[in-house]
Amino acid sequence: MSDNDHQTITRVTCTAPVNIAVIKYWGKRDEDLILPINSSLSVTLHQDQLKTTTTIACSRSFREDRIWLNGKEEDVSHPRLQSCLREIRRLARKRRNTDNPTSEVTSVSYKVHICSENNFPTAAGLASSASGYACLVYALSQLFGVEGELSVVARQGSGSACRSLYGGFVQWKLGERSDGKDSIAEQVEPESYWPEVRVLILVVSAEQKSVGSTSGMHTSVETSHLLKCRADVVVPGRMEQMIGAIRQRNFAVFGDLTMKDSNQFHATCLDTYPPIFYLNDISRKIISLVHRYNQHYGETRVAYTFDAGPNAVIYTLQEHLPEFLKVVLHFFPPEVNGGEFLRGLPVNLTPLSEELKREIKMEPTPKGIHYIISTKAGPGPCTVDDPNLHLLDAGGLPKKNA
Amino acid sequence: MSDNDHQTITRVTCTAPVNIAVIKYWGKRDEDLILPINSSLSVTLHQDQLKTTTTIACSRSFREDRIWLNGKEEDVSHPRLQSCLREIRRLARKRRNTDNPTSEVTSVSYKVHICSENNFPTAAGLASSASGYACLVYALSQLFGVEGELSVVARQGSGSACRSLYGGFVQWKLGERSDGKDSIAEQVEPESYWPEVRVLILVVSAEQKSVGSTSGMHTSVETSHLLKCRADVVVPGRMEQMIGAIRQRNFAVFGDLTMKDSNQFHATCLDTYPPIFYLNDISRKIISLVHRYNQHYGETRVAYTFDAGPNAVIYTLQEHLPEFLKVVLHFFPPEVNGGEFLRGLPVNLTPLSEELKREIKMEPTPKGIHYIISTKAGPGPCTVDDPNLHLLDAGGLPKKNA
Repeated sequence: MSDNDHQTITRVTCTAPVNIAVIKYWGKRDEDLILPINSSLSVTLHQDQLKTTTTIACSRSFREDRIWLNGKEEDVSHPRLQSCLREIRRLARKRRNTDNPTSEVTSVSYKVHICSENNFPTAAGLASSASGYACLVYALSQLFGVEGELSVVARQGSGSACRSLYGGFVQWKLGERSDGKDSIAEQVEPESYWPEVRVLILVVSAEQKSVGSTSGMHTSVETSHLLKCRADVVVPGRMEQMIGAIRQRNFAVFGDLTMKDSNQFHATCLDTYPPIFYLNDISRKIISLVHRYNQHYGETRVAYTFDAGPNAVIYTLQEHLPEFLKVVLHFFPPEVNGGEFLRGLPVNLTPLSEELKREIKMEPTPKGIHYIISTKAGPGPCTVDDPNLHLLDAGGLPKKNA
Repeated sequence: MSDNDHQTITRVTCTAPVNIAVIKYWGKRDEDLILPINSSLSVTLHQDQLKTTTTIACSRSFREDRIWLNGKEEDVSHPRLQSCLREIRRLARKRRNTDNPTSEVTSVSYKVHICSENNFPTAAGLASSASGYACLVYALSQLFGVEGELSVVARQGSGSACRSLYGGFVQWKLGERSDGKDSIAEQVEPESYWPEVRVLILVVSAEQKSVGSTSGMHTSVETSHLLKCRADVVVPGRMEQMIGAIRQRNFAVFGDLTMKDSNQFHATCLDTYPPIFYLNDISRKIISLVHRYNQHYGETRVAYTFDAGPNAVIYTLQEHLPEFLKVVLHFFPPEVNGGEFLRGLPVNLTPLSEELKREIKMEPTPKGIHYIISTKAGPGPCTVDDPNLHLLDAGGLPKKNA
């Protein structure tokens, strides 16, 4: 083997999307394998607004696995990160043994350098672990030439990450097996199936750090009677109804189920002991605003959902977006003039009728919303071909601007 | 019959207490008879701090039933008020037919004048319907000489009113019969059984009017899957545990169950569609404060419970009251100097250790609590003998100062 071989560095760069559940995942039946107590369903958001980018470099010359997240080197020994590395290497070895035992493409035994960053601030309170682990697993699979069921691997990094491996509308089936082989993500429909769906993320100024979702769901499983009832009795029916609503592009049903399921998830948090609160008074005002808006029209035109924090994610249809956004701006007037307030996909605002303002009957809450990201459903992970976009340089270390 | 007979006015004045549930009542299986979907349990509060006083006058000369509430004449045709009047008159007739068919004490057919007032402001957000209907039914029973099961009558005025007919610790058994005859209140133990229990009502400044409990519980029964689970699966066990905790004077168990049940009730409100929110950010801070305080000592010394509003009711033991009250005053400093802030039973405040303040690790919230009522468990309804205390004058009309 030549010196050159020794120094060869293979790089691969991929991107992966964030997803926002409309049927929530909360509670594990197996903490190590990350097997959920109920199925869940999410919408994958467009990567133009929200994505993780990950470059993985691999070389015989690397002495150890290393990882840099958002510009800072982190401890690579994190158990969930190790699970993903181990599982991908196992799949790669298995495949090579089967398909092409003499292949020498990229050795599975080489150490890797991983560099990952998000195009959205962590302060936005959006779970970056889903896009992060999906991107890691997808990039590793590209590097090692692994195909097939990646969602079981991503799931072991972060449960909801398995849903970020597909675009559009994605379900994570809880599965029945104790080894988790059937606890996988599946695309219900691609984003092109229902292109009218639009998304607003209302970033609420949170004063306090909330309970992390890993420890939160652990405590919920241990203490909440209602969570068990939700998982066993309620969610199976909702999954079916939700899939039906998506296939029929029935926004009223989709929206009602989304709101009910968000509320039920937060109800089980409140039934946890000690109780967990993710919604604050601003979140509650947003909920109230959405219900009053829908009531004004006598139909569900807008739906909210909240993950483990106070930020609202709003689902609506293209045709209702301009007016509803105007309603939000009226009742939550921004701190400064709107320059940085509305980010992402542009929206042509329409004037509000006095009648609508009157009927909503709420006091405006200035500065209640920090900023808004406007986006839509989008595709799953992608490979980036332009070598200029690698986050690691030719030597396998983070570029200065990374 | 002489003119004198015609003008004879019989007056009776009674008082009745407020009760605060530790196992909550939420949801009816029969809206007319007010039959609950689960049993509940409450502590009757002392009338020195919180009571309703009701005078009922009765005379052949009265042309119609009339009612004055807190100084204002109200519509006597309210269906629940009519239910109570009808049921008491029915019991009175039945008793006279059986016991003493020729008795002429107070004719059941005479019209009544009812005058009722509370010694606490309605703004305190304390459900006055329980003490109000308990007092009405008790006073009517005294007037017409009715004995026996009054709780089925009071229940038809306001569900939780049946529990205000007894002092101390009181359960309302849901019963099985469709006519409601076995849906009755029973004393578990009198207030003297566990005299160390103390109560603080933290009156939170509420900005908005919340959903009334009648319509709220109706919507919950219609829409919340979790409420059904709570009523059928959770509450039966909790009732047994709670009665056991009271009988053993085990505050840790009493307190934990109280907090869990309050949280679960509010969880079912959040699972209602559209969701109902009674807790606000101040309520949540109080919850957090209580858990941190208990955690500091490694035992449950203080417990919170919230009814259909943001006000906290705190249960604790005499020995822990001075310190905990000081903690509340530290983290919720009053608007003005404490003169009117702490009402009711006096408490000798003790200084707070710096360690405790540090460990609770919360930012103080000035003006978050409007005022505090300090009280304890107390007896059931009483008859007032002093004729000067009647709220109606000798002519059966409200006294000027009433």
